[in-house]
Amino acid sequence: QSEGGASGAVHGSLQAGALTTTYTASQGLLLMIPNMYKIAGELLPCVFHVSARALATHALSIFGDHSDVMSARQTGFAFLASGSVQEVMDLAGVAHLATIRTRVPFCHFFDGFRTSHEVSKVEVIDYSEYEKLIDMDAVQAFRNKSLNPERPVTRGTAQNPDIFFQAKEASNKFYEAVPAVVDDYMKKISKVTGREYNLFDYYGASDADRIIIAMGSVTETIEETIDYLIAKGEKVGMIKVRLYRPFAPEYLLKILPKTVTKIAVLDRTKEPGSIGEPLYLDIRSMFFDIDGPKIIVGGRYGLGSNETNPSQIKAVYDMLASEVKNNFTIGINDDVTNLSLEIKEEIVTEPAGTTRCMFWGLGSDGTVGANKSAIKIIGDNTDLYAQGYFAYDSKKSYGITVSHLRFGKSKIRSTYLITESDYVACHNQSYVVQYDLLKGLRKGGTFVLNTQWSAEELSANLPADMKNKMAKNDIKLYIIDAVKIAEEIGLGNRINMVMQAAFFKLTEVINVDDAIEYLKEAVVKAYGLKGQNIVDMNNKAIDAGVNACTEVEVPADWATTTEGQKMASDPKDGDTDFIKSILRPVSAQKGNDLPVSVFNGVEDGTFENGSSAFEKRAIATSCPEWQVDSCIQCNQCSFVCPHGVIRPFLLDAEEVANKPESFVTKKLLEKD
Amino acid sequence: QSEGGASGAVHGSLQAGALTTTYTASQGLLLMIPNMYKIAGELLPCVFHVSARALATHALSIFGDHSDVMSARQTGFAFLASGSVQEVMDLAGVAHLATIRTRVPFCHFFDGFRTSHEVSKVEVIDYSEYEKLIDMDAVQAFRNKSLNPERPVTRGTAQNPDIFFQAKEASNKFYEAVPAVVDDYMKKISKVTGREYNLFDYYGASDADRIIIAMGSVTETIEETIDYLIAKGEKVGMIKVRLYRPFAPEYLLKILPKTVTKIAVLDRTKEPGSIGEPLYLDIRSMFFDIDGPKIIVGGRYGLGSNETNPSQIKAVYDMLASEVKNNFTIGINDDVTNLSLEIKEEIVTEPAGTTRCMFWGLGSDGTVGANKSAIKIIGDNTDLYAQGYFAYDSKKSYGITVSHLRFGKSKIRSTYLITESDYVACHNQSYVVQYDLLKGLRKGGTFVLNTQWSAEELSANLPADMKNKMAKNDIKLYIIDAVKIAEEIGLGNRINMVMQAAFFKLTEVINVDDAIEYLKEAVVKAYGLKGQNIVDMNNKAIDAGVNACTEVEVPADWATTTEGQKMASDPKDGDTDFIKSILRPVSAQKGNDLPVSVFNGVEDGTFENGSSAFEKRAIATSCPEWQVDSCIQCNQCSFVCPHGVIRPFLLDAEEVANKPESFVTKKLLEKD
Repeated sequence: QSEGGASGAVHGSLQAGALTTTYTASQGLLLMIPNMYKIAGELLPCVFHVSARALATHALSIFGDHSDVMSARQTGFAFLASGSVQEVMDLAGVAHLATIRTRVPFCHFFDGFRTSHEVSKVEVIDYSEYEKLIDMDAVQAFRNKSLNPERPVTRGTAQNPDIFFQAKEASNKFYEAVPAVVDDYMKKISKVTGREYNLFDYYGASDADRIIIAMGSVTETIEETIDYLIAKGEKVGMIKVRLYRPFAPEYLLKILPKTVTKIAVLDRTKEPGSIGEPLYLDIRSMFFDIDGPKIIVGGRYGLGSNETNPSQIKAVYDMLASEVKNNFTIGINDDVTNLSLEIKEEIVTEPAGTTRCMFWGLGSDGTVGANKSAIKIIGDNTDLYAQGYFAYDSKKSYGITVSHLRFGKSKIRSTYLITESDYVACHNQSYVVQYDLLKGLRKGGTFVLNTQWSAEELSANLPADMKNKMAKNDIKLYIIDAVKIAEEIGLGNRINMVMQAAFFKLTEVINVDDAIEYLKEAVVKAYGLKGQNIVDMNNKAIDAGVNACTEVEVPADWATTTEGQKMASDPKDGDTDFIKSILRPVSAQKGNDLPVSVFNGVEDGTFENGSSAFEKRAIATSCPEWQVDSCIQCNQCSFVCPHGVIRPFLLDAEEVANKPESFVTKKLLEKD
Repeated sequence: QSEGGASGAVHGSLQAGALTTTYTASQGLLLMIPNMYKIAGELLPCVFHVSARALATHALSIFGDHSDVMSARQTGFAFLASGSVQEVMDLAGVAHLATIRTRVPFCHFFDGFRTSHEVSKVEVIDYSEYEKLIDMDAVQAFRNKSLNPERPVTRGTAQNPDIFFQAKEASNKFYEAVPAVVDDYMKKISKVTGREYNLFDYYGASDADRIIIAMGSVTETIEETIDYLIAKGEKVGMIKVRLYRPFAPEYLLKILPKTVTKIAVLDRTKEPGSIGEPLYLDIRSMFFDIDGPKIIVGGRYGLGSNETNPSQIKAVYDMLASEVKNNFTIGINDDVTNLSLEIKEEIVTEPAGTTRCMFWGLGSDGTVGANKSAIKIIGDNTDLYAQGYFAYDSKKSYGITVSHLRFGKSKIRSTYLITESDYVACHNQSYVVQYDLLKGLRKGGTFVLNTQWSAEELSANLPADMKNKMAKNDIKLYIIDAVKIAEEIGLGNRINMVMQAAFFKLTEVINVDDAIEYLKEAVVKAYGLKGQNIVDMNNKAIDAGVNACTEVEVPADWATTTEGQKMASDPKDGDTDFIKSILRPVSAQKGNDLPVSVFNGVEDGTFENGSSAFEKRAIATSCPEWQVDSCIQCNQCSFVCPHGVIRPFLLDAEEVANKPESFVTKKLLEKD
């Protein structure tokens, strides 16, 4: 029945006097809009938790931005933004508490994927804390107002032009009351958690001249960037918007440093045809007749989970310091309408002591699960902060997964993919010719390759560019044949435990012996019920992962070699423009570098057909072969081939006569 | 399948290469939003014509405002506003021509009810004119891009974070091109029609210091008010927004007089929690860093077809000239949050020579149809402009209808209900105790009452207030028993032809003899096929209407009398607060005077049950009665009673024994 029906059920449930909540995103939120108008109009307290995601336009995107939330901002809901997993924990409760007291329904939103799918170590608020804060009189009043045959009233009527407008204005007072109530509950939650929350929070220099105003997970990245820039003597800051609706300028003005002269407003949505995006319009309008900053520009970022990192944030501050530009974009290269800001300097802003690890896995090989388990082990057993984010392509099983893990003693606010890493593990050897695996691996970093190649075979099989990078950057290279180990132990293609053990050994994020103990405890927890045999196999895999990892000395001549395997992403004869300019870079995970101009002529989302033929990924670690002599014509080969490329055909005499020479046939085993 | 399915069909049809359009409003538009994002993203030329209507919130409203259109402003559609029936004719074509050339889909909108349901004399543009203007190369290009198995492409894909943002920005250039194309087509249409159109149009004093910015039908009322105020020496003006999206400030600045220092932006929508409504935010943002007007305020008007008239517009200009107030409302009395502007002076602004007529009818009595026919007769046969607007309540059949007709030699821009009338006809005598029929009838105006009362019976039956008004204002009073005439002729309860003839006789908008001729021609057209008998009856009704209308001299002592029928709207014993403060005024057509405070406590749309019992309308001109002596127990009385109040019951001995004395029974006619 779609989210239209779901939101109707919420509406009905609320009218029946049951506190009700729901969760949605993207197109689902669009379908809830009609009911949102009704729920708000009828002053029914509830919270919609939204992991904000893009809306389908020229193409669908399942990824994160604020297009969905912004499409509902006019419904009469209050909107509260969280910027991190911890903030979701802390502010979700504020939304519930405030809606009960104010009767204004809340949309509590946070970034889809970046926040909704991040694994992070957080502190949990106990339900007993909420018990002390909830306004039970308001709950009782809500119940007393419910539709009930024992005290019947009429609700949901049609009103004519004579009274509709007045009745609508009658609810103004409820909206006027919201900011103070949210502020009050934020103060109370701050007291419980020790983490300070306000309707708007300022971060940065107390004498900042340039600030950014933004909401959502980008504010974490901006914080990190501000620390970096302030350390370099720059006077920068940021205002985080938490309560976006009702928008309360007086609270924003209270925290704005008097020294601010320039503001850049970042919006994570795009409304074609508007002179600016929603938050920008609010900020320009509020400052229109206030004696304050005279330069306010707006920019778009992060559409469809496009990456926003500190180098881009620095570009925004740099722009404010030099020639200001309005209606800009960051994160892309717009060489058509020239709206994008140039990145003049790539910066690395994670606090010293942060360990950054990347894992290139194959969808369904267990890499992501193993990494989640590693985060849990480190998070639960140490005082380290831990963060995991997992980038998938759309193929899911047998597609590519890149895990981004950070560990450190400082709070992790890096809400972007790793740009400089300490450790890179590649779980599939075919990736060496497909992806730039070493991009961002720091000088002296560690590269672990799961491979069937021996140390001696590496030189011939690794591409020249990879070898150059390893030699020039003093990379520590390790190899391990996890496929063989897993198969021998009896784990089939599940190489994850082997690679996880290798990770613990090589990174030394925690003591290796402790790690082995924790890993084995985790195995018992996960597989204990499946029998000792499974537990034993996994324990063997752990030991093998620790022991079978071999360091390979990187030959000095790799620094300059031009020999090695060709990259699969290199253009080939027969490539069309589309294959050359879009498909190959996208397949090589370099789509983000594509400038806007490559989409000239296909702005409506048109792609060429038949492009799979150009994407040979060669990811299989073993290949089936039809052995004509052994074939008993059971045809099960056809049944088990996941891609349907082995298919038996029954040929007649004429077909046999005309078949190509290379087409091998075998006489049919007839029943009679 | 709802408008969700309809818009999906439009999307599919467009992708198949067929130029496609659709029409919707209100909740229907909400359901189209998901497809609107797709249609815009895929650059598919089309036009959605929207009669802008309110959205259901605390209550449903089927009436007009811009809530629906504004809920779709972020979809990537272009938005073009028409303010009158003539503009709908002229600009609908501009929308179609421009979408074909630009590939950006258009929403062409105009006010629901006020424009969509107004009957107005307009000039029609011939299709051959469009033929000269349509860009056939663009049509061909659109067809060539369609999905077709003979030239297959892939469209409607999912895009990942790597390319979604760039691909989205690639369409900027299409939006940048829209304003110039619309401007070009407006110039061409202006050339065809002689009526000038621009993206923004200025109206008013060339040295205005105060202006209003608005869009939709209110701009017509504002024009009329400006003429009135300029004649009194005030320096006022207005900017009409026609192309709302893409919003092109450079075109607005071109027409803004340099003398303007203050702007009031009128929005016909409400977004609770925002610091201002959408058009206001645009205007404040665009002027943020422009050396121009320093005072820009915003106000709401006309929600759910709340009336906006010249006195309210004057209040806006007055406010700008004295103490400016932001976030104001007009058309209501907000005594709770005190946002409404006070009307200090009621003004009448229709050009001299405009005849203004009001008809109080009973839903289904034919009044509205007759009035539409009258407009057609006058519009077609004279050079007079003619306008009709019909206000219904929600009961429709047997509810109340008030027809507002204007005729005049000048263009009629009065997009509001008649506030001062020359002629009032009441088609149902029970209305004299229900409504303030004479409100606004000018000194010396005409009042026609269809009544079964004789001239002598009037004094006892009319309420004191009505008699006072007639005597004090030199009202010319006419009575006619149209019910009796129609019944005698054989037309049953269809009194419309009688009353229409009376109207032509008494108003003399056109020569009476001509009018009779036109009416009789119209009868032949309408009923000719139904036989001469029907035509003859209607012709008889026309003659009777002209002849049976009797002038009644208004006695001088009516000026001060306190005698007469009590008003039905007066409070009664047993009225609850709700009945007293809401139901009675609403029933008396005085709901518009209710201040916001009467909705305190019921802001969520709650109404009391059982309120019909308090609304005795006594509108029947004859009443059925059970005549126990004549009853043959056929029970057809029960069958024909439209309200199911006559119901036969078979009583057993015990029930007969216990029945109240007043409960009359009759022995059952048994079969055997």
